[in-house]
Parts: sequence; C-alpha cells; structure tokens
Amino acid sequence: MSLPRIAVDAMGGDEGVQTMISGAALARRRHDKFKFLLVGDETRIKAALDAHPNLRGASEILHAEDVVSGDEKPTAALRRARKTSMGLAVDAVKRGQAGAAVSAGNTGALMAMSKLALRTMPGIDRPALAALLPSLGDNDVIMLDLGANTECDARNLIQFAIMGAAYSRIVTGRDAPRVRLLNIGTEETKGTDELQQAAQRLRAATGLAMSFDGYIEADKINRGTCDVVVTDGFSGNIALKAIEGAARFVTDLLRTAFTSSLRSKVGFLVSRPATELLKHHLDPNNHNGAVFLGLNGVIVKSHGSANAAGVANAVDVAARLLEDDLTKRIAADLSELGEIRVRGRARARAEGESA
Amino acid sequence: MSLPRIAVDAMGGDEGVQTMISGAALARRRHDKFKFLLVGDETRIKAALDAHPNLRGASEILHAEDVVSGDEKPTAALRRARKTSMGLAVDAVKRGQAGAAVSAGNTGALMAMSKLALRTMPGIDRPALAALLPSLGDNDVIMLDLGANTECDARNLIQFAIMGAAYSRIVTGRDAPRVRLLNIGTEETKGTDELQQAAQRLRAATGLAMSFDGYIEADKINRGTCDVVVTDGFSGNIALKAIEGAARFVTDLLRTAFTSSLRSKVGFLVSRPATELLKHHLDPNNHNGAVFLGLNGVIVKSHGSANAAGVANAVDVAARLLEDDLTKRIAADLSELGEIRVRGRARARAEGESA
Repeated sequence: MSLPRIAVDAMGGDEGVQTMISGAALARRRHDKFKFLLVGDETRIKAALDAHPNLRGASEILHAEDVVSGDEKPTAALRRARKTSMGLAVDAVKRGQAGAAVSAGNTGALMAMSKLALRTMPGIDRPALAALLPSLGDNDVIMLDLGANTECDARNLIQFAIMGAAYSRIVTGRDAPRVRLLNIGTEETKGTDELQQAAQRLRAATGLAMSFDGYIEADKINRGTCDVVVTDGFSGNIALKAIEGAARFVTDLLRTAFTSSLRSKVGFLVSRPATELLKHHLDPNNHNGAVFLGLNGVIVKSHGSANAAGVANAVDVAARLLEDDLTKRIAADLSELGEIRVRGRARARAEGESA
Repeated sequence: MSLPRIAVDAMGGDEGVQTMISGAALARRRHDKFKFLLVGDETRIKAALDAHPNLRGASEILHAEDVVSGDEKPTAALRRARKTSMGLAVDAVKRGQAGAAVSAGNTGALMAMSKLALRTMPGIDRPALAALLPSLGDNDVIMLDLGANTECDARNLIQFAIMGAAYSRIVTGRDAPRVRLLNIGTEETKGTDELQQAAQRLRAATGLAMSFDGYIEADKINRGTCDVVVTDGFSGNIALKAIEGAARFVTDLLRTAFTSSLRSKVGFLVSRPATELLKHHLDPNNHNGAVFLGLNGVIVKSHGSANAAGVANAVDVAARLLEDDLTKRIAADLSELGEIRVRGRARARAEGESA
C-alpha cells in the first residue's frame, strides 16, 4: 500500500512560501517515500520549488487564490475556506487526496476548519491540541489539550489520555506510556471534580495501552518522569506558555549577564557547547508541530514563526503519524475502552446475580 | 503608635528551629523597631536564641507543645490547633498580641487556621494566596491566587485584583500598579465567562488605585510589563509551578553542560558573574514569603525548604505589610469600589428619571 500524501499549506506562517517549501523539502529528504500536495499561490510555489528539484518531483501543486490572515476570526475564515490555501489543504484530507495537512497559519481558523471538514472520530467528543515538549528524560513529553477546549469534563480528559498515549507510543516506542493528569497536588482529593472522576476511571481501567500514574504538578512536566500530561485546554495553555516564558526569562537573564563584561564574554565563548545544548533543547523549532488529535485525519499546526528546520519537524510529525497510522491506533484503543466498559458491566451484573 | 509584633512559628519548615530563628534575627536587623513573638518549643527556641542576642532582646517566647506535620490534613490540624505552634501564632494575631504571623509549615493547615481564626475582611468573600515572582522589570510581579481557591467567580477575581494592587503599591511604590487577568489570549472574547465578566467590570471601574490593562498570557508573566497578575487558584498554581519547573529545567541543562567537559568547566568559572546573577534571580529564597490576602491580619507563608535568608525575606514581607498597613489599604480600596457602585447606580437612576 502506498503512503497517503501530505498536504502543505504553503501560504500560512509569518516566514512566507520559501520557508514552508524549504521545510517540506528538508522533511522529504528524511521521508523519501512521501508525496506532497502543495497548496497556495501557484506562481510563488513554483518559484520556491526551483531551489528544491527533489521536492518538485514528489509534489503536485493545488492553486489557492486566497490566504487566511493571522488575525482573522475563525468564523470569517470558515465562510471563505474554499478559496484559501488552509481550507483547501484541510479539504484535501477530507476528500482522501492527502492523509495529513500541515499549516503554519491562524490556529483558531485551522481548528475550526478541521473540525467542520473532518469531524471527530467515532468515540471522541472533542479533538485536542497536543504538542511535544523537551524533557530531561530520554524522550519528549506530550501535553494535551493546549487550548482547543477551555472547559473539559472527565469523559473529555479520559479521551485525551487515550489519544495522547497512542501518540506517545509512536514517538517513544514504549508499549505503555506513562500518563498523568495535570493537577495542583498529587493527593487523590486535590483539584476539580472532573479531574478526580477522570483519575478514578483511569485507575480502574485495565487493558489500556498506557500506565496511568495519577496526578502530576506543573513543576514536574519537564522532569522526564512522565510521557503524557493530560489537562483541559485552559490549564494546558497556561502551563505551556508559562514554561516558554520562564525558559525565555532565564535565557534572557543569561544573555544580559554574558554580555555585561569582558570576563563573561570570554566565559560565553569558552562555554559554547553548554549554550549550544541549551539552544538545542529550548529552540521551539526543535519541538515544532502541534497535532489536532481525534479527527478523521491528521492535522499538524506548525508555529507561525518557525524557520525551515521547524517546518521540516512539523512535516516530520505528520509523516510519522501517517506511517504508524495514528487514527487507527486511537480507534483500536477506544474500542478497547469500550470492551472494558462492557466487561465491567458484565462483571457488575454477574456479581449482582451472585449476591 | 508602636508597631504591632510579628509572631513567628518557630517549628514549621523542613529546616528546623535554628533556621527560623536565624531568619527572624536577620530580618530584625533590617527592621529594628519590630518586636517578635516566637512560638514553639521553649527549650529549643531558647537554645537557638543563644546565637542571636539581638533578637532575644526583642522577643517573647510563647511555648507550644505540639507541631503541625507537613502531611497532616488541615481538618486534623484544626482540631488540635490550640496546642500547635502554628495555631498559637495565628491565634496571637486574632487576639491582637501580634499584627502578623509567619509560618513555614503545612500550607493547607495554615490557610484553614487563618481563615477560621481571622475571618475575611468585610467586603472580601475569599482570601487569596499571593506571591512575588522575579521579572525583567524594575520590580517583582505579584501573582494571586496561587491555590487557595480552585474555582473563582468574577466577583472573587475583582477582589483579588484590588488586594493585589494594594500589595503592589507597597512593594513597588507605584500609585496605580498595572493589573492584568491571566488568560489564554488577549482578545476580549478569550477565556471563561468569569474572566470576561471580571475584565468588563474592571475596565468600567474608575477611581480604583490601579491601572487595569486587560488580559496577560502566561509567557508574559515575567516580562516586567505588569505588576499584578490575577487568576483563579488552579491556574495560578499551574502557572507558578510551571515557571519554577521550567527555570529548574534550564538551569539543570546548563549544569549538565557545564560539567560535561573541561572546556565548559573553564567557561563556567570565567562566567561566574553570569551564573551568580541567574542564581540571584531564580533562588526561591529571594522571593520567599507568600501572603494570605483578605484576612483580618497579615499571614505570611515561608517556603518549607527556605534557608535563613529566605525566612528573613518572609519576615521582611510581614514587616513591610505591617508598616504600610496593608489591611487598611485594602479596606479603603474596597470602600472606593463600593462608592463607584453606588455612584454608578445613582447615575443610572438619574438617567432613568431624565429619560
């Protein structure tokens, strides 16, 4: 079976067509079996492809007249979706012309278009936005939801846990990724009713392809002791941005200090390997590519300010999720959960009869 | 008028009596007009005071038989409050024997005891936990609530804004501290209904001793563009811990890198001023002393693992809040808000009549 194509919205993002095309070309070198559908202004895409014959040979161009702007309201973008590069890229996934779409455009618009065109998978009430974060462990940690759902109930959180675990199995190769719910303490009585219910049901479930470890506090997210951090979209967005802001705060302090005296400047040069390591771990381009999980198709959001290497990482995420058929994995896990519920009920009934 | 005393729970905290007494002695040097009430095991406090004759001369000892343990449930601690050093320190504030209490013990127990003994101020529905965070600006930023209230309505958030602004005026000397609500975007339509209502009412209010600037995202908390960040206790706890965790993550990465090669080790030594600056900004001891705002009395929570310098900073916070009479300031601001409401109603009535 041939692999599905990857649709790339070549117009989204702050860095323009050249960056998107260069990024796709970089990714294509790592995944040379993939074909691409490049969506956007045909003339500009063709010009950008001149520098990348390798990608050109593996791509088809789908012309789009228009672009969704960064500050456009999702509802406004939806109305003219069929004319925009983002809308046509998502539509290509809906029609089966591509298996995944990657866009660096307006997050709200991308989410709205994806939900409307692709619909949620059977068994999933709401899609969630998941990202990879750096950790001190052997692999990145996945956190979800990051803003798609401001408020969530226990059922949503459980579905997020299942989707996050399926994604983590692909990223980490672990059979049973360590999953935790983000909370303000680790005791069972901490947090909202929704969290406590979700924890109770995940603890009780057996047969899920994850190891549920209870709660995690926000200062432990990057420690490498957990593979999937599950939370509602409001808290997830706060945690993600707080981490980004604090990392930038520390590096800004360092930069100030390193440039404030000759002695420090010398120190900075000598300790270049240290600062390179830091840059490697903290550069958002190295962790680029947030995924909307739970839709009938793979949608990857690249950061608006990502460079070509960042875009390549986002395309990379799409390629890996297609190679391992994420959507099928989630569906299988959900049916497993269904069986657990049925078995649970059968057991309860049997116990009721024997009582 | 003589200044009220500061009660110090000498038994709380992981570091023991010596650290608490050394910390109080350090603070006493900076605030030499203050008297202290040292609460806990009399023998151990006396022994610790041998090294600090300066503090001994300004202190009275209040013996307590018992200690609240770190993992004790607040309800259990409440039942035997009268025997514990924490309970007696809070009780001293209630009886007017001290103006403020400082404890490094169990946060939940301290909050429960303080609420029960001191009650909330007239006009305040719920107290909030506020802390000072480092920033790139000229002053620390105050964030509240940090976990006292898992869920908050618009009215709570407005009261937190008023309390935070009063605290910030003391810390920063600004007449109108810049106050913002923590949210997942800065557009008016972002976030929960509670946030939107609170923002609307704060925007409409005039005459409050603050400059309300709308929403702030979690990556901007430390940028120095805002003096008070207002949030519910769940999100505040997540944001605070995410910042702590990310700062530790970055410094851990740096440490690993700096110790991995001789070249880096040399770099580390040469760039000592840079790492000292970092340590100064990120050392939690330099920002120690979270305050329960909104009670009839000042209660300061010192971090359990704070060293003597950290404890001194927590006592320092208590001293500054007493010197500037925080409680009176909040009461004045609340009555101002009351007047705004009354004036608003009177105007609405007048407009109704003239229509």
